[in-house]
Amino acid sequence: MRKESRLIRWIGRIVVVTALLLLGFIIGWFAKPTTNTTNQIASSKYLREFLDEMQSDQIREHLRKFTRLPHLAGTEQNLRYAEQIRKEWLEFGLDSVEMVPYDVLLSYPNKSQPNYISIVDQLGSEVFNTSLAEPVPAGYEDVSNIVPPYSAFSAKGQPEGDLVYVNYGRTEDFFQLEREMGINVTEKIVIVRYGKIFRGNKVKNAMLAGAKGIIMFSDPADYWAAGVQPYPDGWNLPGGGVQRGNVLNLNGAGDPLTPGYPAKEYTYRFNLEDAVGLPKIPVHPIGFHDAIHLLKNMGGLIPPNNWKGALNVSYKIGPGFTDDFRSQKVRMNIHTNNQLTRIYNVIGRIRGALEPDRYVILGGHRDAWVFGGIDPMSGAAVVHETVRSAGRLLSKGWRPRRTLIFASWDAEEFGLQGSTEWAEDNAKLLQERAVAYINADSAMEGMYTLRVDCTPSLHTLVYDITKQIASPEEGEEGVSLYDSWHKRDNWTNDRDAPRINKLGSGSDFEAYFIRLGIAAGRARYTKNKITERYSSYPVYHSVYETFEIVEKFYDPSFKRLRAVAQVRGGLIFRLADSLLLPLDVNQYADSLRKYAQSIAQLAQRHPEEMKMYAVSFDSLFSAVENFTIAARDFHERLQTLNREDPLQVRVINDQLMYLERAFIDPLGLPGRPFYRLVTHALCNGQLDLQ
Amino acid sequence: MRKESRLIRWIGRIVVVTALLLLGFIIGWFAKPTTNTTNQIASSKYLREFLDEMQSDQIREHLRKFTRLPHLAGTEQNLRYAEQIRKEWLEFGLDSVEMVPYDVLLSYPNKSQPNYISIVDQLGSEVFNTSLAEPVPAGYEDVSNIVPPYSAFSAKGQPEGDLVYVNYGRTEDFFQLEREMGINVTEKIVIVRYGKIFRGNKVKNAMLAGAKGIIMFSDPADYWAAGVQPYPDGWNLPGGGVQRGNVLNLNGAGDPLTPGYPAKEYTYRFNLEDAVGLPKIPVHPIGFHDAIHLLKNMGGLIPPNNWKGALNVSYKIGPGFTDDFRSQKVRMNIHTNNQLTRIYNVIGRIRGALEPDRYVILGGHRDAWVFGGIDPMSGAAVVHETVRSAGRLLSKGWRPRRTLIFASWDAEEFGLQGSTEWAEDNAKLLQERAVAYINADSAMEGMYTLRVDCTPSLHTLVYDITKQIASPEEGEEGVSLYDSWHKRDNWTNDRDAPRINKLGSGSDFEAYFIRLGIAAGRARYTKNKITERYSSYPVYHSVYETFEIVEKFYDPSFKRLRAVAQVRGGLIFRLADSLLLPLDVNQYADSLRKYAQSIAQLAQRHPEEMKMYAVSFDSLFSAVENFTIAARDFHERLQTLNREDPLQVRVINDQLMYLERAFIDPLGLPGRPFYRLVTHALCNGQLDLQ
Repeated sequence: MRKESRLIRWIGRIVVVTALLLLGFIIGWFAKPTTNTTNQIASSKYLREFLDEMQSDQIREHLRKFTRLPHLAGTEQNLRYAEQIRKEWLEFGLDSVEMVPYDVLLSYPNKSQPNYISIVDQLGSEVFNTSLAEPVPAGYEDVSNIVPPYSAFSAKGQPEGDLVYVNYGRTEDFFQLEREMGINVTEKIVIVRYGKIFRGNKVKNAMLAGAKGIIMFSDPADYWAAGVQPYPDGWNLPGGGVQRGNVLNLNGAGDPLTPGYPAKEYTYRFNLEDAVGLPKIPVHPIGFHDAIHLLKNMGGLIPPNNWKGALNVSYKIGPGFTDDFRSQKVRMNIHTNNQLTRIYNVIGRIRGALEPDRYVILGGHRDAWVFGGIDPMSGAAVVHETVRSAGRLLSKGWRPRRTLIFASWDAEEFGLQGSTEWAEDNAKLLQERAVAYINADSAMEGMYTLRVDCTPSLHTLVYDITKQIASPEEGEEGVSLYDSWHKRDNWTNDRDAPRINKLGSGSDFEAYFIRLGIAAGRARYTKNKITERYSSYPVYHSVYETFEIVEKFYDPSFKRLRAVAQVRGGLIFRLADSLLLPLDVNQYADSLRKYAQSIAQLAQRHPEEMKMYAVSFDSLFSAVENFTIAARDFHERLQTLNREDPLQVRVINDQLMYLERAFIDPLGLPGRPFYRLVTHALCNGQLDLQ
Repeated sequence: MRKESRLIRWIGRIVVVTALLLLGFIIGWFAKPTTNTTNQIASSKYLREFLDEMQSDQIREHLRKFTRLPHLAGTEQNLRYAEQIRKEWLEFGLDSVEMVPYDVLLSYPNKSQPNYISIVDQLGSEVFNTSLAEPVPAGYEDVSNIVPPYSAFSAKGQPEGDLVYVNYGRTEDFFQLEREMGINVTEKIVIVRYGKIFRGNKVKNAMLAGAKGIIMFSDPADYWAAGVQPYPDGWNLPGGGVQRGNVLNLNGAGDPLTPGYPAKEYTYRFNLEDAVGLPKIPVHPIGFHDAIHLLKNMGGLIPPNNWKGALNVSYKIGPGFTDDFRSQKVRMNIHTNNQLTRIYNVIGRIRGALEPDRYVILGGHRDAWVFGGIDPMSGAAVVHETVRSAGRLLSKGWRPRRTLIFASWDAEEFGLQGSTEWAEDNAKLLQERAVAYINADSAMEGMYTLRVDCTPSLHTLVYDITKQIASPEEGEEGVSLYDSWHKRDNWTNDRDAPRINKLGSGSDFEAYFIRLGIAAGRARYTKNKITERYSSYPVYHSVYETFEIVEKFYDPSFKRLRAVAQVRGGLIFRLADSLLLPLDVNQYADSLRKYAQSIAQLAQRHPEEMKMYAVSFDSLFSAVENFTIAARDFHERLQTLNREDPLQVRVINDQLMYLERAFIDPLGLPGRPFYRLVTHALCNGQLDLQ
């Protein structure tokens, strides 16, 4: 063999070796797995497992367990349930669960001096007294610590005077009373029916009008479903049933003594005189049996038709009783005490695998007026089942990309206090890190279909999730929750998708959404809006909110609660585990346009004022237009995003996370510093489940 | 050749081929470059080039160019300079430069009715008038548009009455006057010397005390350096020189008509009566030649020694003149107008390569009372040179990791308006994305050594950078700026490092630091604190702040300005280009401890009040302790951080970026909603270069 050919052969070998090495190198270089894509496929699989893990029987058990005893905020029993929840969440597998206490102002009836309302004759003798308690439902006769119906934070006092009936006690009702009927309520006691607006606003309106006391009653026109028996034979409110509730005007302040700051041991507290939102007059709620006695002899003007409820009385306006009873007066006897009280939130966490500094929160309250069969334990049972299912997934090796936080709030019924204090305690972290807050108050207020209220950016995700969940309704096997909801809701107003409501206020999401600007939503089962016209649900905040009312009437199979669990759970799963945050900016732009149009339309009704104050909506519509274009551009950029680049993904996700924050005015609405989300803060003061 | 051996050979070949491919694959897999380490080495090299690029001659030229004509905020000349800066920044190579206008409330003397102060006799005839203008320095005789000395935002009016001398017009001076000397200034005109506190606070104190006018003068005791000639032969204030300045009490509000919101065309504006911070009485500044005339015949009490300045007068307190002149009164003639005026910020950007959504800001004002030789153009020239040098680096292929923003603010002299309006316009983005703000007002107030005021987290970086910069002082060749500074400052109080001051207020960083909680700092050349006791620098805010005063006295070689440019530039370079943000949490903890101790010590002086109000510092010290432990843990975690993991790096950097934000109280100090950084907001109202 010649030297040259040997050399050539060696060169050939070297070339081949080099080529092979190079080929391997190139394969190795580019073969580094596209981890994000793989992860997202695994995530979808886990989501399916998560939804399937949730069980009706488990939810029934959770609800049964946590509704045996009354657990009013600040009572020992509510602390016991908190401890039990903490223990079980740890057993379910959460990374950590802590009890977080605050010392806030609550309000309780005086145990030795009951609250009631009397009719007194001219000698001052009580000729009629309202009942001191609701008849206790069967099976609960031996239960102690059922708080009698009262208006929490009512002023103390025994005002006596003539009654004036003011319909729902809305601003327009008082205007009509004063301007059209010429009746002044100064030094009078007003009586109004529950419904239409938050009860705290009725009290505020009565105070502003000069009344010295206010009585609120549940009228069957507003709290009675046709063809349904009163509890326990059906789910209607018995005549002796009464709606409890706080009558504060907090405007988002949380604890009335520490507005803006967490109610910790080191916090400066206002004196009671400076406390936020306390009414200055006595307030008391009654059922319709008692209301008949107060209303039946009233004199004065005949009411307009829309002031008439469904009781067999004339609904005369007053002031005072008819001729035969003119000498009789009404006297309120209110001895309710404000009291600094320790409350407890339970906060559980699953630490995020890749972005532990991004939080997705599922929170709902635990405190109940009595048993809380619907409000809030139907929601708390759903949270409990969500935690259990998440724990199961953890044991299979799953861990969400972002941190999940589960909260059992205390003292929601006393003005969203537990959730607000925790938000104040963690304001900066939440503002910087919270991706979304899903609320978990009562999971049902009816038995017809799904109801969702959420920020516009969550609409698309809600539709997406509900398509992956089965309808809980009998006869709808194989139908998705989305299709069932769409068909039942029959919403054809502006798009071919089920109605989603604008998120208002009145539950624990308020501090997170309206104050901090965190994307938020809530989902529950609801009634048929068109055929069922009563407010919330008939037994709302009464002693008849028991486990049995759910088991017998609202959800015997517990499939509806399971569906709600799957919606709430599906939302937090996707928010915590998706590579890209499932928030839709285009949808937000769309909604902004609708909001702007509806404001402009409302303004058209007042052409003179528009002219006088030179009101123009040009800047508003121009801002909406700019936002719409930016949203479209953003979603286009999403198409070309390199999903394998962790930094690019994080940058885009930060933009999505901070979308809602963009609408925060740091100074808040004039005079209401905690209502800061300008796109939503104005639709406040609506009736809700507080 | 047998089949078997052929087979074996083929197997052999396949094995070799596979092995080679595998080897290549493994190399390729692991060879993916550890980009972050490489990048950081390149970054250090670029920093050196950046610092070396900055040239004294260039700074001299920039300063020369922008100090030829007066350029008061709101004037055409200041817009022209803005346009020139925009053009040149684009030429230097910035990615974008925009003019950002706002319409804000400014204040100018009435051109047809000059402001002055008279002594009037009993017939009302003017027997003495203060001068209407400062003698114009040589070389500027033909310049028009030199605004005469005035107190911007003074109320109009012609109050007449007796003078009362109240030293510096501090709270303690008025207390002493009223409580110890028993003098009431109601219906009097007070005269106070400049110095010690911000002039706006003197005016507020005079108003609160009931005075109907206030005159401020520059006393040589406070504005005269021993052994130095007055300008143009030296850098002392001539007797005809006067300090202009605004007399607002804005508390961080920016434009007085749009507090909290950017002054755009769509913004709601207050009426003048509701404007923030406008004084209700006439105010006027004078030089010491004029002051002598007002003071020399004053009667009344002999002043305490520390009320005596350096003029050849008795400094008697008044009220009014001595016996011989008792019938003479003082009359102020003030016709200054408030006026809605368009101002222009210039905003330039270099988009970050990897984290375009993180901002490092270098901002300083452009508007000057007259020529602005020192205030602010010595700072603006430094910014200009920084932009030029950054542009050179861009052309060499460098691009910072994060976005750099350069700002030329307008209307700083009228209450930090340009910078505050832009902060209000971009509040949410800045809060979410701003890493740090470095201020670039006057780059010198003396010729002795470096002065740095910054947030504690920047201390370490400042030391680091100054060690890489040469001392500009003659005879200190080969000495670092750090060593020169350390030696000259001779600070041995608490650590072996040069003194760094707590960042106060009074320049454009205020909205960024005190309102938004963005880490901030400032650096300039200063006087010898121990031997030079005058306030700021003698010619401050007078017509004598020319290019020549810098060229002849303050920095003939322009090396001091270069050193300041290198400090400011080095800071923004490292903040924008470091993989990990160069912020030191331990240092913050250290400073918090010192702040807490000094507050506790101050409190010890009032033992009865401590007892009466049950004041305890336990919670404060416990919070500092918790923070200290968390800081230590954090820095330990930094050691084990995987710097190759972009997500982990970003998470840690976010924690660092939001460190300062942690001390924001969203509600602000009581009654001062824009003073929100609780660690620093309280040391406000100090004298500074506004």
